Amino acid sequence: VATLDATELQAILSAAFPDGDVPVVEEVSGSTVVVSQPISARHERPGGTVSGPIMMMLADTTAWMAILAQVGPVLLAVTTSLHIDFLRKPDMADLVARGTVLKLGRKLAVVDVSIYSRGRGDVLAKAQVTYALPSSHAGDAS
Amino acid sequence: VATLDATELQAILSAAFPDGDVPVVEEVSGSTVVVSQPISARHERPGGTVSGPIMMMLADTTAWMAILAQVGPVLLAVTTSLHIDFLRKPDMADLVARGTVLKLGRKLAVVDVSIYSRGRGDVLAKAQVTYALPSSHAGDAS
Amino acid sequence: VATLDATELQAILSAAFPDGDVPVVEEVSGSTVVVSQPISARHERPGGTVSGPIMMMLADTTAWMAILAQVGPVLLAVTTSLHIDFLRKPDMADLVARGTVLKLGRKLAVVDVSIYSRGRGDVLAKAQVTYALPSSHAGDAS
Amino acid sequence: VATLDATELQAILSAAFPDGDVPVVEEVSGSTVVVSQPISARHERPGGTVSGPIMMMLADTTAWMAILAQVGPVLLAVTTSLHIDFLRKPDMADLVARGTVLKLGRKLAVVDVSIYSRGRGDVLAKAQVTYALPSSHAGDAS
Repeated sequence: VATLDATELQAILSAAFPDGDVPVVEEVSGSTVVVSQPISARHERPGGTVSGPIMMMLADTTAWMAILAQVGPVLLAVTTSLHIDFLRKPDMADLVARGTVLKLGRKLAVVDVSIYSRGRGDVLAKAQVTYALPSSHAGDAS
Repeated sequence: VATLDATELQAILSAAFPDGDVPVVEEVSGSTVVVSQPISARHERPGGTVSGPIMMMLADTTAWMAILAQVGPVLLAVTTSLHIDFLRKPDMADLVARGTVLKLGRKLAVVDVSIYSRGRGDVLAKAQVTYALPSSHAGDAS
Repeated sequence: VATLDATELQAILSAAFPDGDVPVVEEVSGSTVVVSQPISARHERPGGTVSGPIMMMLADTTAWMAILAQVGPVLLAVTTSLHIDFLRKPDMADLVARGTVLKLGRKLAVVDVSIYSRGRGDVLAKAQVTYALPSSHAGDAS
Repeated sequence: VATLDATELQAILSAAFPDGDVPVVEEVSGSTVVVSQPISARHERPGGTVSGPIMMMLADTTAWMAILAQVGPVLLAVTTSLHIDFLRKPDMADLVARGTVLKLGRKLAVVDVSIYSRGRGDVLAKAQVTYALPSSHAGDAS
Protein backbone atom coordinates (compact mmCIF):
# COMPACT_ATOMS: atom_id res chain seq x y z
CA VAL A 1 0.00 0.00 0.00
CA ALA A 2 1.15 3.49 -0.79
CA THR A 3 1.99 6.10 1.85
CA LEU A 4 1.26 9.18 -0.26
CA ASP A 5 -1.59 9.63 -2.71
CA ALA A 6 -1.61 11.42 -6.06
CA THR A 7 -2.58 14.78 -4.57
CA GLU A 8 0.20 14.70 -2.00
CA LEU A 9 2.75 13.66 -4.63
CA GLN A 10 1.57 16.43 -6.94
CA ALA A 11 2.17 19.01 -4.23
CA ILE A 12 5.77 17.83 -3.80
CA LEU A 13 6.32 17.81 -7.55
CA SER A 14 4.84 21.25 -8.13
CA ALA A 15 7.11 22.70 -5.43
CA ALA A 16 10.13 21.10 -7.10
CA PHE A 17 9.32 22.50 -10.57
CA PRO A 18 8.71 26.13 -9.68
CA ASP A 19 9.15 27.47 -13.20
CA GLY A 20 6.30 25.64 -14.86
CA ASP A 21 6.27 22.62 -17.15
CA VAL A 22 5.25 20.50 -14.18
CA PRO A 23 4.47 16.83 -14.81
CA VAL A 24 1.08 15.56 -13.60
CA VAL A 25 0.71 12.71 -11.09
CA GLU A 26 -2.29 10.89 -12.49
CA GLU A 27 -2.56 7.77 -10.41
CA VAL A 28 -1.04 5.82 -7.54
CA SER A 29 -1.89 2.14 -7.30
CA GLY A 30 0.06 -0.36 -5.20
CA SER A 31 3.74 0.03 -6.12
CA THR A 32 2.94 1.77 -9.41
CA VAL A 33 2.47 5.45 -10.26
CA VAL A 34 1.37 7.06 -13.52
CA VAL A 35 2.88 10.46 -14.32
CA SER A 36 2.25 12.46 -17.50
CA GLN A 37 4.10 15.27 -19.23
CA PRO A 38 2.12 17.79 -21.24
CA ILE A 39 3.88 18.38 -24.56
CA SER A 40 3.79 21.74 -26.27
CA ALA A 41 5.39 23.18 -29.40
CA ARG A 42 8.57 24.10 -27.57
CA HIS A 43 9.35 20.41 -26.91
CA GLU A 44 9.25 19.71 -30.63
CA ARG A 45 12.31 18.52 -32.48
CA PRO A 46 12.81 18.42 -36.26
CA GLY A 47 10.63 15.68 -37.73
CA GLY A 48 7.65 16.40 -35.48
CA THR A 49 8.94 14.40 -32.54
CA VAL A 50 9.49 15.28 -28.89
CA SER A 51 13.04 15.57 -27.57
CA GLY A 52 14.83 12.66 -25.95
CA PRO A 53 15.85 14.65 -22.85
CA ILE A 54 12.20 15.31 -21.97
CA MET A 55 11.71 11.54 -21.82
CA MET A 56 14.79 11.10 -19.61
CA MET A 57 13.51 13.81 -17.29
CA LEU A 58 10.07 12.16 -17.15
CA ALA A 59 11.62 8.75 -16.39
CA ASP A 60 13.62 10.28 -13.55
CA THR A 61 10.63 12.16 -12.14
CA THR A 62 8.34 9.14 -12.38
CA ALA A 63 10.84 6.98 -10.51
CA TRP A 64 11.08 9.63 -7.79
CA MET A 65 7.29 9.78 -7.43
CA ALA A 66 7.03 5.96 -7.33
CA ILE A 67 9.53 5.85 -4.46
CA LEU A 68 7.97 8.72 -2.49
CA ALA A 69 4.57 7.08 -2.86
CA GLN A 70 6.01 4.18 -0.87
CA VAL A 71 8.34 5.83 1.64
CA GLY A 72 6.72 9.22 2.16
CA PRO A 73 8.26 12.65 1.60
CA VAL A 74 11.94 11.65 1.65
CA LEU A 75 13.01 14.69 -0.26
CA LEU A 76 16.69 13.88 -0.14
CA ALA A 77 16.48 10.77 -2.28
CA VAL A 78 18.90 11.25 -5.19
CA THR A 79 19.26 9.48 -8.51
CA THR A 80 22.37 7.32 -8.60
CA SER A 81 21.89 5.79 -12.04
CA LEU A 82 19.51 5.83 -14.97
CA HIS A 83 19.44 3.52 -17.96
CA ILE A 84 17.07 4.22 -20.81
CA ASP A 85 16.43 2.54 -24.14
CA PHE A 86 14.67 4.67 -26.75
CA LEU A 87 12.45 2.35 -28.75
CA ARG A 88 10.19 4.39 -31.02
CA LYS A 89 9.92 7.96 -32.24
CA PRO A 90 7.19 9.68 -30.23
CA ASP A 91 4.41 11.66 -31.84
CA MET A 92 3.78 15.25 -30.72
CA ALA A 93 1.41 14.04 -28.02
CA ASP A 94 1.49 14.12 -24.24
CA LEU A 95 3.77 11.53 -22.68
CA VAL A 96 2.47 9.07 -20.09
CA ALA A 97 4.91 7.18 -17.87
CA ARG A 98 4.19 4.19 -15.69
CA GLY A 99 6.72 3.56 -12.91
CA THR A 100 6.78 0.43 -10.74
CA VAL A 101 9.05 -0.01 -7.72
CA LEU A 102 11.04 -3.22 -8.22
CA LYS A 103 13.03 -2.98 -5.02
CA LEU A 104 12.81 -0.78 -1.98
CA GLY A 105 15.82 -1.42 0.21
CA ARG A 106 17.35 0.50 3.07
CA LYS A 107 19.94 2.15 0.85
CA LEU A 108 18.64 1.83 -2.68
CA ALA A 109 15.38 1.78 -4.57
CA VAL A 110 15.05 0.57 -8.16
CA VAL A 111 12.14 1.57 -10.38
CA ASP A 112 11.08 0.27 -13.80
CA VAL A 113 9.59 2.99 -16.02
CA SER A 114 7.73 2.62 -19.34
CA ILE A 115 6.88 5.70 -21.39
CA TYR A 116 4.01 5.89 -23.89
CA SER A 117 2.29 8.52 -26.01
CA ARG A 118 -1.15 9.28 -24.58
CA GLY A 119 -3.64 6.80 -25.97
CA ARG A 120 -1.07 4.60 -27.72
CA GLY A 121 -0.10 1.09 -26.69
CA ASP A 122 3.51 0.91 -27.92
CA VAL A 123 6.28 1.60 -25.44
CA LEU A 124 8.35 4.61 -26.58
CA ALA A 125 11.12 4.28 -24.03
CA LYS A 126 11.98 1.93 -21.20
CA ALA A 127 14.10 2.88 -18.22
CA GLN A 128 15.56 1.38 -15.05
CA VAL A 129 16.28 4.07 -12.47
CA THR A 130 18.09 3.75 -9.12
CA TYR A 131 17.79 6.18 -6.23
CA ALA A 132 19.86 6.27 -3.05
CA LEU A 133 17.80 6.76 0.08
CA PRO A 134 18.99 8.67 3.14
CA SER A 135 19.91 6.49 6.12
CA SER A 136 16.99 7.53 8.28
CA HIS A 137 14.30 5.98 6.10
CA ALA A 138 12.93 2.57 7.12
CA GLY A 139 12.72 0.07 4.23
CA ASP A 140 13.44 -3.62 3.76
CA ALA A 141 16.78 -5.06 4.77
CA SER A 142 19.35 -4.07 2.16
CA VAL B 1 2.80 -14.63 -33.13
CA ALA B 2 6.06 -16.43 -32.72
CA THR B 3 8.02 -17.97 -35.59
CA LEU B 4 9.84 -20.65 -33.58
CA ASP B 5 8.38 -22.75 -30.77
CA ALA B 6 10.05 -23.89 -27.56
CA THR B 7 11.33 -27.15 -29.06
CA GLU B 8 12.94 -25.38 -32.01
CA LEU B 9 14.53 -22.77 -29.74
CA GLN B 10 15.82 -25.50 -27.42
CA ALA B 11 17.56 -27.18 -30.34
CA ILE B 12 19.37 -23.94 -31.22
CA LEU B 13 20.31 -23.35 -27.59
CA SER B 14 21.58 -26.88 -26.99
CA ALA B 15 23.80 -26.62 -30.06
CA ALA B 16 25.22 -23.33 -28.76
CA PHE B 17 26.06 -24.71 -25.29
CA PRO B 18 27.88 -27.88 -26.29
CA ASP B 19 29.59 -28.42 -22.95
CA GLY B 20 26.52 -28.82 -20.77
CA ASP B 21 24.84 -26.43 -18.36
CA VAL B 22 22.26 -25.70 -21.03
CA PRO B 23 19.36 -23.43 -20.09
CA VAL B 24 15.85 -24.79 -20.73
CA VAL B 25 13.33 -23.05 -22.99
CA GLU B 26 10.12 -23.60 -21.07
CA GLU B 27 7.55 -21.55 -22.92
CA VAL B 28 6.95 -19.24 -25.87
CA SER B 29 3.88 -17.07 -25.80
CA GLY B 30 3.34 -14.03 -28.00
CA SER B 31 6.44 -11.83 -27.65
CA THR B 32 7.50 -13.49 -24.39
CA VAL B 33 9.70 -16.50 -23.68
CA VAL B 34 10.43 -18.25 -20.39
CA VAL B 35 13.90 -19.76 -20.00
CA SER B 36 15.22 -21.48 -16.87
CA GLN B 37 18.69 -22.26 -15.60
CA PRO B 38 19.19 -25.35 -13.44
CA ILE B 39 21.37 -24.43 -10.46
CA SER B 40 23.79 -26.91 -8.94
CA ALA B 41 26.36 -26.75 -6.16
CA ARG B 42 29.06 -25.44 -8.49
CA HIS B 43 27.09 -22.20 -9.06
CA GLU B 44 27.12 -21.54 -5.32
CA ARG B 45 28.84 -18.51 -3.88
CA PRO B 46 29.71 -17.86 -0.22
CA GLY B 47 26.51 -17.20 1.72
CA GLY B 48 24.45 -19.84 -0.11
CA THR B 49 23.65 -17.67 -3.09
CA VAL B 50 24.10 -18.15 -6.83
CA SER B 51 26.71 -16.13 -8.68
CA GLY B 52 25.85 -12.84 -10.39
CA PRO B 53 27.46 -13.84 -13.70
CA ILE B 54 25.08 -16.80 -14.09
CA MET B 55 22.21 -14.31 -13.94
CA MET B 56 23.86 -12.07 -16.55
CA MET B 57 24.37 -15.07 -18.80
CA LEU B 58 20.74 -16.11 -18.34
CA ALA B 59 19.52 -12.58 -19.14
CA ASP B 60 21.59 -12.56 -22.32
CA THR B 61 20.42 -16.04 -23.38
CA THR B 62 16.77 -15.26 -22.63
CA ALA B 63 16.93 -12.10 -24.73
CA TRP B 64 18.46 -14.08 -27.60
CA MET B 65 15.70 -16.70 -27.41
CA ALA B 66 12.98 -14.04 -27.26
CA ILE B 67 14.33 -12.47 -30.46
CA LEU B 68 14.79 -15.74 -32.33
CA ALA B 69 11.24 -16.74 -31.38
CA GLN B 70 10.10 -13.74 -33.39
CA VAL B 71 12.54 -13.57 -36.29
CA GLY B 72 13.51 -17.19 -36.76
CA PRO B 73 16.99 -18.73 -36.62
CA VAL B 74 19.03 -15.54 -37.15
CA LEU B 75 22.13 -17.04 -35.59
CA LEU B 76 24.28 -13.99 -36.20
CA ALA B 77 22.36 -11.69 -33.90
CA VAL B 78 24.89 -10.28 -31.41
CA THR B 79 24.48 -8.54 -28.08
CA THR B 80 25.35 -4.86 -28.32
CA SER B 81 24.50 -3.83 -24.77
CA LEU B 82 23.19 -5.26 -21.53
CA HIS B 83 22.06 -3.41 -18.45
CA ILE B 84 21.17 -5.35 -15.32
CA ASP B 85 20.08 -4.32 -11.84
CA PHE B 86 20.56 -6.95 -9.13
CA LEU B 87 17.69 -6.55 -6.70
CA ARG B 88 17.72 -9.45 -4.23
CA LYS B 89 20.06 -12.22 -3.17
CA PRO B 90 18.90 -15.41 -4.86
CA ASP B 91 18.39 -18.65 -2.97
CA MET B 92 20.13 -21.80 -4.18
CA ALA B 93 17.19 -22.62 -6.44
CA ASP B 94 16.74 -22.85 -10.19
CA LEU B 95 16.48 -19.49 -11.92
CA VAL B 96 13.52 -18.67 -14.16
CA ALA B 97 13.74 -15.75 -16.61
CA ARG B 98 10.92 -14.12 -18.51
CA GLY B 99 11.96 -12.12 -21.58
CA THR B 100 9.63 -9.86 -23.55
CA VAL B 101 10.57 -8.20 -26.84
CA LEU B 102 10.00 -4.45 -26.46
CA LYS B 103 11.14 -3.49 -29.93
CA LEU B 104 11.99 -5.47 -33.02
CA GLY B 105 13.46 -3.13 -35.58
CA ARG B 106 15.44 -3.72 -38.73
CA LYS B 107 18.76 -3.12 -37.03
CA LEU B 108 18.11 -3.53 -33.32
CA ALA B 109 15.95 -5.55 -30.98
CA VAL B 110 15.45 -4.66 -27.31
CA VAL B 111 14.28 -7.20 -24.74
CA ASP B 112 13.14 -6.73 -21.16
CA VAL B 113 14.16 -9.63 -18.88
CA SER B 114 13.02 -10.40 -15.32
CA ILE B 115 14.74 -13.16 -13.34
CA TYR B 116 13.11 -15.05 -10.46
CA SER B 117 13.89 -18.03 -8.25
CA ARG B 118 11.63 -20.96 -9.22
CA GLY B 119 8.36 -20.66 -7.34
CA ARG B 120 9.06 -17.22 -5.86
CA GLY B 121 7.31 -13.99 -6.83
CA ASP B 122 10.04 -11.42 -6.12
CA VAL B 123 12.17 -10.25 -9.01
CA LEU B 124 15.85 -11.07 -8.36
CA ALA B 125 17.30 -9.14 -11.27
CA LYS B 126 15.96 -6.96 -14.06
CA ALA B 127 17.72 -6.45 -17.38
CA GLN B 128 17.35 -4.54 -20.64
CA VAL B 129 19.28 -6.22 -23.44
CA THR B 130 19.91 -4.97 -26.99
CA TYR B 131 20.88 -7.16 -29.93
CA ALA B 132 22.00 -6.04 -33.38
CA LEU B 133 20.36 -7.94 -36.20
CA PRO B 134 22.06 -8.74 -39.49
CA SER B 135 20.87 -6.68 -42.45
CA SER B 136 19.10 -9.51 -44.20
CA HIS B 137 16.40 -10.01 -41.59
CA ALA B 138 12.98 -8.45 -42.19
CA GLY B 139 11.63 -6.52 -39.18
CA ASP B 140 9.75 -3.29 -38.62
CA ALA B 141 11.10 -0.06 -40.03
CA SER B 142 14.03 1.04 -37.89
CA VAL C 1 40.93 13.09 -37.54
CA ALA C 2 37.73 15.01 -37.15
CA THR C 3 35.50 16.04 -40.05
CA LEU C 4 33.88 19.05 -38.38
CA ASP C 5 35.58 21.61 -36.15
CA ALA C 6 34.21 23.31 -33.04
CA THR C 7 32.77 26.26 -34.99
CA GLU C 8 30.89 24.00 -37.40
CA LEU C 9 29.56 21.87 -34.55
CA GLN C 10 28.47 24.98 -32.65
CA ALA C 11 26.43 26.12 -35.65
CA ILE C 12 24.57 22.78 -35.73
CA LEU C 13 23.99 22.87 -31.99
CA SER C 14 22.76 26.47 -31.93
CA ALA C 15 20.25 25.67 -34.66
CA ALA C 16 18.98 22.68 -32.65
CA PHE C 17 18.50 24.68 -29.42
CA PRO C 18 16.56 27.65 -30.79
CA ASP C 19 15.17 28.78 -27.46
CA GLY C 20 18.43 29.53 -25.69
CA ASP C 21 20.36 27.63 -23.07
CA VAL C 22 22.66 26.38 -25.81
CA PRO C 23 25.67 24.30 -24.76
CA VAL C 24 29.10 25.49 -25.96
CA VAL C 25 31.39 23.34 -28.11
CA GLU C 26 34.76 24.20 -26.64
CA GLU C 27 37.15 21.82 -28.33
CA VAL C 28 37.47 19.01 -30.86
CA SER C 29 40.56 16.87 -30.69
CA GLY C 30 40.91 13.45 -32.35
CA SER C 31 37.88 11.41 -31.31
CA THR C 32 37.14 13.64 -28.32
CA VAL C 33 35.00 16.75 -27.96
CA VAL C 34 34.58 19.07 -24.99
CA VAL C 35 31.13 20.65 -24.53
CA SER C 36 30.12 22.92 -21.65
CA GLN C 37 26.77 23.96 -20.22
CA PRO C 38 26.47 27.39 -18.62
CA ILE C 39 24.61 27.06 -15.33
CA SER C 40 22.33 29.79 -14.04
CA ALA C 41 20.04 30.15 -11.05
CA ARG C 42 17.15 28.48 -12.81
CA HIS C 43 19.07 25.17 -12.98
CA GLU C 44 19.44 25.19 -9.20
CA ARG C 45 17.87 22.49 -7.07
CA PRO C 46 17.38 22.55 -3.31
CA GLY C 47 20.76 22.16 -1.61
CA GLY C 48 22.60 24.42 -4.05
CA THR C 49 23.12 21.75 -6.67
CA VAL C 50 22.29 21.55 -10.37
CA SER C 51 19.55 19.22 -11.55
CA GLY C 52 20.24 15.69 -12.73
CA PRO C 53 18.31 16.08 -15.99
CA ILE C 54 20.61 18.90 -17.12
CA MET C 55 23.51 16.45 -16.82
CA MET C 56 21.63 13.80 -18.81
CA MET C 57 20.87 16.35 -21.50
CA LEU C 58 24.52 17.42 -21.59
CA ALA C 59 25.69 13.79 -21.85
CA ASP C 60 23.33 13.22 -24.76
CA THR C 61 24.36 16.43 -26.53
CA THR C 62 28.06 15.78 -26.03
CA ALA C 63 27.73 12.29 -27.49
CA TRP C 64 25.94 13.72 -30.53
CA MET C 65 28.65 16.33 -31.05
CA ALA C 66 31.40 13.70 -30.69
CA ILE C 67 29.77 11.59 -33.40
CA LEU C 68 29.10 14.48 -35.79
CA ALA C 69 32.70 15.61 -35.38
CA GLN C 70 33.68 12.27 -36.92
CA VAL C 71 30.98 11.60 -39.51
CA GLY C 72 29.93 15.11 -40.52
CA PRO C 73 26.47 16.68 -40.32
CA VAL C 74 24.41 13.47 -40.06
CA LEU C 75 21.48 15.22 -38.49
CA LEU C 76 19.29 12.15 -38.36
CA ALA C 77 21.43 10.28 -35.86
CA VAL C 78 19.17 9.36 -32.92
CA THR C 79 19.92 8.24 -29.38
CA THR C 80 19.07 4.59 -28.87
CA SER C 81 20.28 4.21 -25.29
CA LEU C 82 21.87 6.20 -22.52
CA HIS C 83 23.32 4.92 -19.28
CA ILE C 84 24.48 7.38 -16.65
CA ASP C 85 25.91 6.99 -13.16
CA PHE C 86 25.69 10.06 -10.94
CA LEU C 87 28.77 10.09 -8.76
CA ARG C 88 28.97 13.38 -6.87
CA LYS C 89 26.72 16.33 -6.12
CA PRO C 90 27.68 19.16 -8.45
CA ASP C 91 28.34 22.68 -7.25
CA MET C 92 26.46 25.59 -8.83
CA ALA C 93 29.16 25.93 -11.47
CA ASP C 94 29.24 25.48 -15.22
CA LEU C 95 29.36 21.87 -16.33
CA VAL C 96 32.09 20.62 -18.66
CA ALA C 97 31.65 17.32 -20.51
CA ARG C 98 34.29 15.34 -22.33
CA GLY C 99 32.97 12.84 -24.88
CA THR C 100 35.12 10.24 -26.64
CA VAL C 101 33.89 8.03 -29.47
CA LEU C 102 34.53 4.41 -28.47
CA LYS C 103 33.06 2.84 -31.58
CA LEU C 104 31.92 4.23 -34.88
CA GLY C 105 30.21 1.48 -36.83
CA ARG C 106 27.93 1.48 -39.82
CA LYS C 107 24.79 1.25 -37.71
CA LEU C 108 25.81 2.32 -34.23
CA ALA C 109 28.16 4.71 -32.51
CA VAL C 110 29.03 4.49 -28.81
CA VAL C 111 30.43 7.45 -26.88
CA ASP C 112 31.90 7.61 -23.39
CA VAL C 113 31.09 10.90 -21.59
CA SER C 114 32.54 12.27 -18.35
CA ILE C 115 31.01 15.37 -16.75
CA TYR C 116 32.88 17.73 -14.44
CA SER C 117 32.31 21.08 -12.73
CA ARG C 118 34.43 23.75 -14.42
CA GLY C 119 37.87 23.75 -12.86
CA ARG C 120 37.35 20.66 -10.72
CA GLY C 121 39.02 17.29 -11.24
CA ASP C 122 36.40 14.92 -9.83
CA VAL C 123 34.01 13.27 -12.24
CA LEU C 124 30.40 14.23 -11.38
CA ALA C 125 28.69 11.82 -13.74
CA LYS C 126 29.77 9.16 -16.21
CA ALA C 127 27.70 8.06 -19.18
CA GLN C 128 27.79 5.61 -22.07
CA VAL C 129 25.58 6.76 -24.93
CA THR C 130 24.60 4.90 -28.12
CA TYR C 131 23.35 6.52 -31.30
CA ALA C 132 21.90 4.81 -34.37
CA LEU C 133 23.26 6.16 -37.62
CA PRO C 134 21.24 6.36 -40.83
CA SER C 135 22.18 3.79 -43.45
CA SER C 136 23.74 6.23 -45.87
CA HIS C 137 26.67 7.20 -43.68
CA ALA C 138 30.04 5.52 -44.30
CA GLY C 139 31.65 4.15 -41.14
CA ASP C 140 33.62 1.05 -40.17
CA ALA C 141 32.21 -2.38 -40.83
CA SER C 142 29.52 -3.09 -38.19
CA VAL D 1 47.07 4.69 -2.76
CA ALA D 2 45.88 1.12 -2.80
CA THR D 3 45.33 -0.96 0.34
CA LEU D 4 45.89 -4.38 -1.24
CA ASP D 5 48.51 -5.30 -3.81
CA ALA D 6 48.18 -7.65 -6.79
CA THR D 7 49.35 -10.70 -4.82
CA GLU D 8 46.83 -10.12 -2.04
CA LEU D 9 44.02 -9.56 -4.54
CA GLN D 10 44.99 -12.70 -6.42
CA ALA D 11 44.68 -14.75 -3.24
CA ILE D 12 41.12 -13.47 -2.70
CA LEU D 13 40.22 -14.13 -6.32
CA SER D 14 41.68 -17.63 -6.40
CA ALA D 15 39.69 -18.55 -3.29
CA ALA D 16 36.49 -17.25 -4.92
CA PHE D 17 37.00 -19.26 -8.14
CA PRO D 18 37.72 -22.68 -6.67
CA ASP D 19 36.97 -24.63 -9.83
CA GLY D 20 39.62 -23.14 -12.07
CA ASP D 21 39.39 -20.58 -14.87
CA VAL D 22 40.67 -17.97 -12.43
CA PRO D 23 41.35 -14.49 -13.79
CA VAL D 24 44.83 -13.05 -13.17
CA VAL D 25 45.41 -9.80 -11.25
CA GLU D 26 48.24 -8.29 -13.25
CA GLU D 27 48.70 -4.84 -11.80
CA VAL D 28 47.44 -2.39 -9.18
CA SER D 29 48.27 1.27 -9.68
CA GLY D 30 46.50 4.12 -7.92
CA SER D 31 42.77 3.61 -8.37
CA THR D 32 43.27 1.27 -11.35
CA VAL D 33 43.69 -2.49 -11.57
CA VAL D 34 44.48 -4.67 -14.57
CA VAL D 35 42.93 -8.16 -14.60
CA SER D 36 43.26 -10.68 -17.42
CA GLN D 37 41.27 -13.75 -18.41
CA PRO D 38 43.09 -16.58 -20.14
CA ILE D 39 41.01 -17.76 -23.10
CA SER D 40 40.95 -21.40 -24.18
CA ALA D 41 39.07 -23.36 -26.83
CA ARG D 42 36.09 -23.90 -24.58
CA HIS D 43 35.35 -20.14 -24.51
CA GLU D 44 35.07 -20.13 -28.29
CA ARG D 45 31.85 -19.26 -30.02
CA PRO D 46 30.96 -19.83 -33.67
CA GLY D 47 32.95 -17.43 -35.83
CA GLY D 48 36.17 -17.77 -33.80
CA THR D 49 35.16 -15.26 -31.14
CA VAL D 50 34.96 -15.46 -27.35
CA SER D 51 31.57 -15.46 -25.66
CA GLY D 52 29.92 -12.29 -24.41
CA PRO D 53 29.23 -13.68 -20.92
CA ILE D 54 32.96 -14.22 -20.29
CA MET D 55 33.43 -10.47 -20.89
CA MET D 56 30.57 -9.62 -18.51
CA MET D 57 32.08 -11.87 -15.88
CA LEU D 58 35.51 -10.27 -16.37
CA ALA D 59 34.00 -6.76 -16.09
CA ASP D 60 32.30 -7.73 -12.83
CA THR D 61 35.43 -9.36 -11.40
CA THR D 62 37.65 -6.45 -12.41
CA ALA D 63 35.32 -3.97 -10.72
CA TRP D 64 35.38 -6.08 -7.55
CA MET D 65 39.18 -6.18 -7.55
CA ALA D 66 39.42 -2.43 -8.17
CA ILE D 67 37.23 -1.77 -5.14
CA LEU D 68 38.98 -4.25 -2.84
CA ALA D 69 42.32 -2.74 -3.84
CA GLN D 70 41.07 0.50 -2.28
CA VAL D 71 39.01 -0.65 0.70
CA GLY D 72 40.69 -3.90 1.66
CA PRO D 73 39.17 -7.39 1.88
CA VAL D 74 35.49 -6.35 2.11
CA LEU D 75 34.27 -9.70 0.90
CA LEU D 76 30.59 -8.85 1.23
CA ALA D 77 30.58 -6.16 -1.43
CA VAL D 78 27.89 -7.14 -3.95
CA THR D 79 27.18 -6.00 -7.49
CA THR D 80 24.06 -3.86 -7.68
CA SER D 81 24.19 -2.98 -11.35
CA LEU D 82 26.25 -3.56 -14.45
CA HIS D 83 26.01 -1.83 -17.79
CA ILE D 84 28.12 -3.06 -20.69
CA ASP D 85 28.41 -2.01 -24.31
CA PHE D 86 29.94 -4.58 -26.65
CA LEU D 87 31.93 -2.67 -29.25
CA ARG D 88 33.95 -5.12 -31.32
CA LYS D 89 34.14 -8.85 -31.90
CA PRO D 90 37.07 -10.20 -29.90
CA ASP D 91 39.71 -12.47 -31.39
CA MET D 92 40.46 -15.79 -29.71
CA ALA D 93 43.08 -14.13 -27.51
CA ASP D 94 43.38 -13.53 -23.79
CA LEU D 95 41.24 -10.69 -22.51
CA VAL D 96 42.76 -7.82 -20.55
CA ALA D 97 40.53 -5.54 -18.46
CA ARG D 98 41.42 -2.20 -16.93
CA GLY D 99 39.18 -1.07 -14.08
CA THR D 100 39.30 2.40 -12.52
CA VAL D 101 37.34 3.41 -9.42
CA LEU D 102 35.26 6.48 -10.30
CA LYS D 103 33.61 6.85 -6.93
CA LEU D 104 34.16 5.22 -3.58
CA GLY D 105 31.37 6.28 -1.25
CA ARG D 106 30.14 4.92 2.04
CA LYS D 107 27.37 2.90 0.42
CA LEU D 108 28.30 2.58 -3.23
CA ALA D 109 31.36 2.26 -5.40
CA VAL D 110 31.32 2.79 -9.17
CA VAL D 111 34.01 1.38 -11.46
CA ASP D 112 34.71 2.04 -15.12
CA VAL D 113 36.02 -1.05 -16.96
CA SER D 114 37.54 -1.29 -20.44
CA ILE D 115 38.21 -4.71 -21.98
CA TYR D 116 40.83 -5.36 -24.67
CA SER D 117 42.36 -8.34 -26.47
CA ARG D 118 45.94 -8.85 -25.25
CA GLY D 119 48.25 -6.68 -27.30
CA ARG D 120 45.49 -4.81 -29.15
CA GLY D 121 44.59 -1.17 -28.69
CA ASP D 122 40.88 -1.19 -29.58
CA VAL D 123 38.38 -1.40 -26.75
CA LEU D 124 36.23 -4.54 -27.13
CA ALA D 125 33.73 -3.74 -24.42
CA LYS D 126 33.12 -0.90 -21.98
CA ALA D 127 31.30 -1.28 -18.69
CA GLN D 128 30.16 0.76 -15.71
CA VAL D 129 29.72 -1.41 -12.62
CA THR D 130 28.23 -0.47 -9.24
CA TYR D 131 28.84 -2.35 -5.99
CA ALA D 132 27.09 -1.85 -2.67
CA LEU D 133 29.46 -1.78 0.28
CA PRO D 134 28.57 -3.09 3.74
CA SER D 135 27.94 -0.40 6.33
CA SER D 136 31.06 -1.07 8.36
CA HIS D 137 33.52 0.05 5.71
CA ALA D 138 34.97 3.57 5.92
CA GLY D 139 34.80 5.49 2.62
CA ASP D 140 34.08 9.04 1.56
CA ALA D 141 30.87 10.71 2.62
CA SER D 142 28.06 9.24 0.51
